[in-house]
Amino acid sequence: MNPVWIIEKKRDGGELSTEEIAGFVSGFARGEVPDYQMSALAMAVFLNGMTTAETAALTDHMLASGERFEWDAGDQPMVDKHSTGGIGDKVSLVLAPMLACCGLGVPMISGRGLGSTGGTLDKLEAIPGFRTDLSMDEMRRVVRDVGCVISGATPELVPADRKLYALRDVTATVPSIPMITGSIMSKKLAEGLAALVLDVKFGSGAFMKTADLARELARSLVDTGRRMNVATTALVTDMNQPLGRMCGNAVEVDESVAALEGRGPADLMEATLALGAELLVSTGEATGDDARAKLQQTIDSGSAREKFAEMVAAQGGDLDAPRPIAPASEVASPRGGYVAAIDAEAVGKTVIAMRGGRQRQGESLDLSTGVEMFVRVGDRIEAGQPLARLFSQPADEETARTMLIEAITLAEQPTAPLALIVDRIT
Amino acid sequence: MNPVWIIEKKRDGGELSTEEIAGFVSGFARGEVPDYQMSALAMAVFLNGMTTAETAALTDHMLASGERFEWDAGDQPMVDKHSTGGIGDKVSLVLAPMLACCGLGVPMISGRGLGSTGGTLDKLEAIPGFRTDLSMDEMRRVVRDVGCVISGATPELVPADRKLYALRDVTATVPSIPMITGSIMSKKLAEGLAALVLDVKFGSGAFMKTADLARELARSLVDTGRRMNVATTALVTDMNQPLGRMCGNAVEVDESVAALEGRGPADLMEATLALGAELLVSTGEATGDDARAKLQQTIDSGSAREKFAEMVAAQGGDLDAPRPIAPASEVASPRGGYVAAIDAEAVGKTVIAMRGGRQRQGESLDLSTGVEMFVRVGDRIEAGQPLARLFSQPADEETARTMLIEAITLAEQPTAPLALIVDRIT
Repeated sequence: MNPVWIIEKKRDGGELSTEEIAGFVSGFARGEVPDYQMSALAMAVFLNGMTTAETAALTDHMLASGERFEWDAGDQPMVDKHSTGGIGDKVSLVLAPMLACCGLGVPMISGRGLGSTGGTLDKLEAIPGFRTDLSMDEMRRVVRDVGCVISGATPELVPADRKLYALRDVTATVPSIPMITGSIMSKKLAEGLAALVLDVKFGSGAFMKTADLARELARSLVDTGRRMNVATTALVTDMNQPLGRMCGNAVEVDESVAALEGRGPADLMEATLALGAELLVSTGEATGDDARAKLQQTIDSGSAREKFAEMVAAQGGDLDAPRPIAPASEVASPRGGYVAAIDAEAVGKTVIAMRGGRQRQGESLDLSTGVEMFVRVGDRIEAGQPLARLFSQPADEETARTMLIEAITLAEQPTAPLALIVDRIT
Repeated sequence: MNPVWIIEKKRDGGELSTEEIAGFVSGFARGEVPDYQMSALAMAVFLNGMTTAETAALTDHMLASGERFEWDAGDQPMVDKHSTGGIGDKVSLVLAPMLACCGLGVPMISGRGLGSTGGTLDKLEAIPGFRTDLSMDEMRRVVRDVGCVISGATPELVPADRKLYALRDVTATVPSIPMITGSIMSKKLAEGLAALVLDVKFGSGAFMKTADLARELARSLVDTGRRMNVATTALVTDMNQPLGRMCGNAVEVDESVAALEGRGPADLMEATLALGAELLVSTGEATGDDARAKLQQTIDSGSAREKFAEMVAAQGGDLDAPRPIAPASEVASPRGGYVAAIDAEAVGKTVIAMRGGRQRQGESLDLSTGVEMFVRVGDRIEAGQPLARLFSQPADEETARTMLIEAITLAEQPTAPLALIVDRIT
């Protein structure tokens, strides 16, 4: 295998064979193919694309670079939900225990905040004592004992993805559908799943700015999952405003607990139930009609709330211990009108400005800060009416207030509310 | 300057500013921009191209990475000829002394064989004692004393090009017109020239396979040279058969000396006179009409032959010392017909098979080997008629013979001879 010929083939728009992809990816993972050859290939893939077969081979050989969970016949069917990232997206925290209550196993490997979007691990670390660095053995034990676990990737899981992602980040090759697919799916497939549902978001707070791009990514993810024998579906969802009311870390845990107690905002519950229902149907645990009811029942009975506390405890955390929240202050609207648009990315950046998100990798966070949104697209508001509540340290309050006001566009004419789920890809 | 933003801009088809190119190239030359970012940019440039302004900025900032020759007002006007590389192309050896006899200075920085094409430095090293590793001071002295010098690049000259070329070679980003332009022109402009002529070759023995691609490269080279205030013209020439009869190292020196003694093959003399005339006209040393006559006169008078010996001596060589030539054997045609095509690259590879060229960088050569071609495209030959003479070590003779026979395509119908010079780009 000569890496130069493979780069050349992709450069000229050719389709790489499985052997070529295997050789390049495994050579890269072992350090035999240097970064500068991988980055040249990544740019060629960015510009010339990959077929479904190539994307599946990329995923497969990234997966092969590390270990993967193997489950026994006696274990629950394993499932997971993956979101491409958004603002206020705390679905994982709510859904994992609900699924576990339905008899499914959820070995959820999550990440940290990236860009302006929040990260599930950061949020969970707002719970005192909560560990997100479980070993594969610890994760396996929590899944078997509790039914669900949410932890970070271990070094043995898909090392090629970690290495490739770091390189893509510094070579402007991140937003490439085949490479995003390889990155997401290799990590998810390493969980040893029977079924997977993807929440592919579009809009001002998402990586994909349009519904069409999100559909394209969803199609690639679903095709790759199915090709690799995992029942995979995707929902394309709107991220033109934060999901739920809370954006931050501790405040999102609060909202998740409230949701598990039956007091969740409508949009968050809609997303959670729709995504969960996909997995119940994919695994045959429910039909389309009763899947939502079965999930809702885990909330109504209090069992999902209990399951979440159980998972938190199994991961060293204490859900009853107080979670510090920064001082609150309201943001009043300087004028009246209809909410025409919310720049969700700017809301995410407001959280970053309050050090609830990272500007650079590895930065430590202030988990007590955040935003509570009072308005949604389509709402009519009066001058002086509160738009949101900030939870911030006093020094950052003024900056955050200005950013938040600028994130909300008011118009004189009404705007229709946004539909949350715009497409389903199977 | 964030290198990622620059890569992203080029990735998306944007035009980079002079400041962006300056920052990226100088950062790369200083080792601050890592190889993996440069290779990603190189692939983006390969696939999305560069404008004339971008190419000029690339050239300029590669040039700025090192030192350059500065000449005094009292020095001769400095000129050079650069060829994109071919088989049997020994024009530099013949032309440099001819130009020096016409009162021009020729500070020619040459290279080694690359791929199947020969290298001027390798050829000159077939002259016992000849040094191709002169310092900038030594080169300057030889140009002032003799009028012409042919030596290799010194470490101070365009270090960014050396570094970038090595990287392009292993990332499949070599055949990119803007980057070829930057590489060629930065090295040539470092010579401090008043005028430059480019011999841009196309065909089976050239880097550019078609006349149109060669025209495109010639246009880019000429535009860049003019933009940087060097009177630049280019000839587009056919490399679908070797130039002259000899291909190799010592044998090409022999043919060059013969040419300087008035016994050069017609095609070699045509190329030499046409390229030289461009420089005499560009510098105002002659008009179109008398330029060729003036050049021819340097041969007829014996002064060019004498100048060549003078240059060789100034570079430590002895033109009268015997140059070893490997044992000769003739290659007879297995059948009769018209020569329809000659795979010039295959002739180059035949020389490599006799160790007269390199398979890997840094390999040492057998300078005594080579091929003398007896036939040209359009010739009628009989079965058993000699096609060529091999100069090879006995162990390589059979392989070389087979390769050479396969390089020549015979047909039953006649083919028209090939025109050597097909276009002139100004």
